[in-house]
Amino acid sequence: MTFLDQIDQPTLVVDEMITRRNTECMVTRAHKNNVSFRPHFKTHQSSEIGEWFREKGVNKITVSSVEMAEYFALHGWQDITIAFSINIRQLERIRKLAQKIHLGVLVENTLAVESLSQLEGTKVDAWVKVDVGNNRTGLDWQQTDEVFALCSRINQSPALVLKGLLTHSGHTYKAASKKEVCAIFREGISRLIALRDALEKRDLKKLLISVGDTPGCSLCEDWSGADEARPGNFVFYDAQQFTTGVCQFEDIAAAVACPVVAKHQSRREVILYGGAIHLSKDFQMIGSEKSYGLACLVEGNHWGMPIAGAVVKGLSQEHGVVYIPGDEFDKVNIGDLLFIIPAHSCLTVQVLRKYCTIDGRQISTLNQ
Amino acid sequence: MTFLDQIDQPTLVVDEMITRRNTECMVTRAHKNNVSFRPHFKTHQSSEIGEWFREKGVNKITVSSVEMAEYFALHGWQDITIAFSINIRQLERIRKLAQKIHLGVLVENTLAVESLSQLEGTKVDAWVKVDVGNNRTGLDWQQTDEVFALCSRINQSPALVLKGLLTHSGHTYKAASKKEVCAIFREGISRLIALRDALEKRDLKKLLISVGDTPGCSLCEDWSGADEARPGNFVFYDAQQFTTGVCQFEDIAAAVACPVVAKHQSRREVILYGGAIHLSKDFQMIGSEKSYGLACLVEGNHWGMPIAGAVVKGLSQEHGVVYIPGDEFDKVNIGDLLFIIPAHSCLTVQVLRKYCTIDGRQISTLNQ
Repeated sequence: MTFLDQIDQPTLVVDEMITRRNTECMVTRAHKNNVSFRPHFKTHQSSEIGEWFREKGVNKITVSSVEMAEYFALHGWQDITIAFSINIRQLERIRKLAQKIHLGVLVENTLAVESLSQLEGTKVDAWVKVDVGNNRTGLDWQQTDEVFALCSRINQSPALVLKGLLTHSGHTYKAASKKEVCAIFREGISRLIALRDALEKRDLKKLLISVGDTPGCSLCEDWSGADEARPGNFVFYDAQQFTTGVCQFEDIAAAVACPVVAKHQSRREVILYGGAIHLSKDFQMIGSEKSYGLACLVEGNHWGMPIAGAVVKGLSQEHGVVYIPGDEFDKVNIGDLLFIIPAHSCLTVQVLRKYCTIDGRQISTLNQ
Repeated sequence: MTFLDQIDQPTLVVDEMITRRNTECMVTRAHKNNVSFRPHFKTHQSSEIGEWFREKGVNKITVSSVEMAEYFALHGWQDITIAFSINIRQLERIRKLAQKIHLGVLVENTLAVESLSQLEGTKVDAWVKVDVGNNRTGLDWQQTDEVFALCSRINQSPALVLKGLLTHSGHTYKAASKKEVCAIFREGISRLIALRDALEKRDLKKLLISVGDTPGCSLCEDWSGADEARPGNFVFYDAQQFTTGVCQFEDIAAAVACPVVAKHQSRREVILYGGAIHLSKDFQMIGSEKSYGLACLVEGNHWGMPIAGAVVKGLSQEHGVVYIPGDEFDKVNIGDLLFIIPAHSCLTVQVLRKYCTIDGRQISTLNQ
């Protein structure tokens, strides 16, 4: 009898050993590259898993919201960067945080700087959010004038300490190969360096360079030029990362155990209790087909390798539909569990809100 | 000063008046059609909104999980159908529920019936889950032999009361026109009637027919043949329902207020604090473009009409990217709120977990 026998609804199961190994591995990579490590905690969102990082010497973190910063501050983290362009409607909460911890924020426009300047009596680290090609948000790395003006404004504010240039090369997630990931990663650093050099010529003191995406930090050996790295997803990885070659299957640390409620032999489809509210609707392509993750049989108290050819072809609110072409179809019975490696583990943690280790120990999170 | 001025993070706002009007309208439609009304509560997931239904005479409901049934049973609902093919791993929780309330469950295979037969000392209503064309799960409506065998097995079990045939014509959500929605809705009822007639010839007593999808129940005047209806989404509707003509814009009762954190003039893009964890990743097509909902300016303490041509083109974990082609781009300032009508309100309620009325009153939900 294992913990899995007790699972009666979709449950996110985390392998502590793999999680700790992923953590240690990334700490080592950052150390080897002589880069300050500020892991993003938006993937696991858990004070307990945070402690596993602390055991490896991590003492500063990245989060994606004020709410998450408040949660980790409450759990003893004293140095937190909120890697999201400042939302000036949350100024009061930012003030309270800044009074308690060493806080970093992202700015990309004057209005945000003006607003933050009202934080009298506190100091906040300001990072300029730069777009190096992801085209989501941030000032374009070629807009030297605008970045210079913003930096100058930051320097005029007694409440702000200009730290550096920060980017998220989220476009590595769309890269097709290791080579392409590394090219994007290096390009991002080079563009920030080019911008910094241009700013130095205008007498701005040397700015730090902060980067952070799991594909780049996992695959690229050369981090030179970066001062700080902020990857997050590596703690669990997921099906997207595995499929694009960012990690090995053995590095995936989280999967959702889903009860099987029906089988349709003619369509070779298994129906799971496990839908969009358990896995999120993020998907990946397997060949030309959309799949909301990778389906794996239970092996002992763990997930096995992905079932060859299987596709998580549909998710509605509570249902998952898994196509299984091979013999594994007959191995799955109604009442069994099937593991789904989520396409995107960050969103799965967010929708399920709670999880447990492979031996059934509950892990608390921000949203629980 | 309105409640909106106090919003500092993505917040699901519900218009109570519209919600109550939608509720009353559907109660009236069911009554007019002489069909028993068992609304699905998976959309709002709130005991408080449940009370608004109760005020209109509703005394039986549908839910999508055992967890949701437990929540509503705790809030005084005494007649609940769990419209999800039974998950035999939850038998103990089902037993406890059946001891407290009048419980209905869905079965589509013998294993489920065998399992439920162990519920000695309690009675549970059993509905046979039938697939009338949605191709998700359930026994195909043409599989008379299999359905007959299952019904016979149910009738042998002292713990089970065979109630009828139940379907969810989820494929109305993909219909392109009102005419097509109604055709699918009528076809579903006709197929269940055909199956019931075939079963009656084999001496099975007259079974009830339960249907329920918001498009069909909203658009079709002719519900004849159905004994029970279980729509759910109509309580709030959403952008998908509006875009496909199921409701008027004035019927939409829920929207997410999102702070604006950046603007990119050259791309005419507004960056919101409001991403996949606030809206879910369900989308709709606007012309040939994916949009994760409809963007609307704030008007007074409410959302206005959708901004012409605007597209919610991207959602990452916390960010939303909205393209605004017209003059409205200049009306949106950093620090303002923008309303996003969610593509799919059920999933938005699920990811945000809490919401409030337009005047700021908190509404509790199952997951809060």
